Amino acid sequence: MIAIDVIDIVGTFVFALSGVMVAVEHKFDFFGTIILAFVTAVGGGTLRDILIGATPVSWMGSEVLIYVILVTIPLAYLFLNFLKKLRRTMFIFDTIGIGMFTILGLEKSLEIGLSPIIAVMMGVVSAVFGGVIRDVLSNEVPLIFRKEIYAFACFFGALVYLIMEYFYPIKELNMFVSILVVIAIRVLSIKNKWSIPFNPISRK
Amino acid sequence: MIAIDVIDIVGTFVFALSGVMVAVEHKFDFFGTIILAFVTAVGGGTLRDILIGATPVSWMGSEVLIYVILVTIPLAYLFLNFLKKLRRTMFIFDTIGIGMFTILGLEKSLEIGLSPIIAVMMGVVSAVFGGVIRDVLSNEVPLIFRKEIYAFACFFGALVYLIMEYFYPIKELNMFVSILVVIAIRVLSIKNKWSIPFNPISRK
Amino acid sequence: MIAIDVIDIVGTFVFALSGVMVAVEHKFDFFGTIILAFVTAVGGGTLRDILIGATPVSWMGSEVLIYVILVTIPLAYLFLNFLKKLRRTMFIFDTIGIGMFTILGLEKSLEIGLSPIIAVMMGVVSAVFGGVIRDVLSNEVPLIFRKEIYAFACFFGALVYLIMEYFYPIKELNMFVSILVVIAIRVLSIKNKWSIPFNPISRK
Repeated sequence: MIAIDVIDIVGTFVFALSGVMVAVEHKFDFFGTIILAFVTAVGGGTLRDILIGATPVSWMGSEVLIYVILVTIPLAYLFLNFLKKLRRTMFIFDTIGIGMFTILGLEKSLEIGLSPIIAVMMGVVSAVFGGVIRDVLSNEVPLIFRKEIYAFACFFGALVYLIMEYFYPIKELNMFVSILVVIAIRVLSIKNKWSIPFNPISRK
Repeated sequence: MIAIDVIDIVGTFVFALSGVMVAVEHKFDFFGTIILAFVTAVGGGTLRDILIGATPVSWMGSEVLIYVILVTIPLAYLFLNFLKKLRRTMFIFDTIGIGMFTILGLEKSLEIGLSPIIAVMMGVVSAVFGGVIRDVLSNEVPLIFRKEIYAFACFFGALVYLIMEYFYPIKELNMFVSILVVIAIRVLSIKNKWSIPFNPISRK
Repeated sequence: MIAIDVIDIVGTFVFALSGVMVAVEHKFDFFGTIILAFVTAVGGGTLRDILIGATPVSWMGSEVLIYVILVTIPLAYLFLNFLKKLRRTMFIFDTIGIGMFTILGLEKSLEIGLSPIIAVMMGVVSAVFGGVIRDVLSNEVPLIFRKEIYAFACFFGALVYLIMEYFYPIKELNMFVSILVVIAIRVLSIKNKWSIPFNPISRK
């Protein structure tokens, strides 16, 4: 489906950008930057594919995504100062990326016959584990573990998609709406400083 | 086999508890805690399944384990102070968990026709890599690398199981006995402060 | 092919040595050392196999590599002081290892029908990710991210192999030559302190 391809390309571009920016922050060299951009962009989907047994992993089937990443890196270098000023815009891009990857991962898992609860989990994995691997390789505690609205937004958007597909199976519309739900939750949660202070220690 | 299901559930519960406790220590938020509990509980078995090509990984086939983890987390929160006082009991639980996962992983690998030496390794991987992934995600050097009796106990218990199955193939009894062997070695090694001071640098 | 088996054994030996030396540096205990030697030696190839869906991963099919690693560890302990003085020789060994693993990984990926660009990437992954996993488990930023000639040498050697195979498909000769290319690039780059200062921040 064309919509899925577009989503995949935009999401990959956005995540590759975020990988480059972290690599620059950590002063990685050129090849390190390529590797970090790559694992950030395809890491979540790769982990999903490995877990569900869909190997060779999906980016090996279409070289488009590889070219997207390879083009993103010089672009990111060129516009680095510009991108840094655009923190807010970057955040929107990143949010669009996780929304897209959540629904893509969910859809793919449903297609190969996994149960809805597993498919929702695989949607969240697709969206957040690229960032987790990026942080582990940069020797940092994954961001995701401290900003729960991130994963929660993915989880909730995935639920919305499931419910909509059950009642009104108009796939492309439902993808669009549920991606918007992910974006809305994350944007609202940042604006209003929402968090889920469930950890009994941090409560005290 | 019922015994295997029970073992899997108890082991998962115990490892999920340990994941929650580490997450609380590191002040992870709610979703971070869920993820850490999850990878600690299923990480070792998941890595084993990926390595031997048994995908979709096993916990995707039975949602029971997912529910066990989801129930464990609020329980761990509720009884957190109680659990902290129970360090010694927790240690016993953890030890039971690694004993169980070692023999489960070994059995599963033998069943799909892997050689005994590989199967023993997969038993150890099943038991210890949940904790390794937990520590990597928490940005710490894996505990296991500094407390060798942990892995050694798994290794030895797996050997005992192999030998017993060869001479007296009464599976459920042998599982029970070899799990006890893992537990006994670890408990004795902690009590008596055994270690394998094989590292030539630490020897000096 | 005999050449491939020899390459695999030598590369495994060399990488296991490097794993032991890092483990000793970090004062890991005996089992930690075994695990680190193991993941360093087989980690890259294992990740490649998982990504391309060649499971059970290759080292499970021939126990030779496991024995190589198990023999390497006591040898490394015995000759530790000697090995430390041999930093330069060790570096040559390591370089030979990455050259060998690059071409092996490339060949294997081409054989199962992956496209040349993916196969080149899998060659680089085979060569460098053993070290990346070793560094992540030791809680360090992977060396590779700061010494780009390392990955670049693999990448370039893989390209040379592809081109030679296209024009003169004499496999064993081409493997030999392209491994030499990897080694030459790395040795020259270290001698002449070459680097690719592409990171826009470090340029300033």
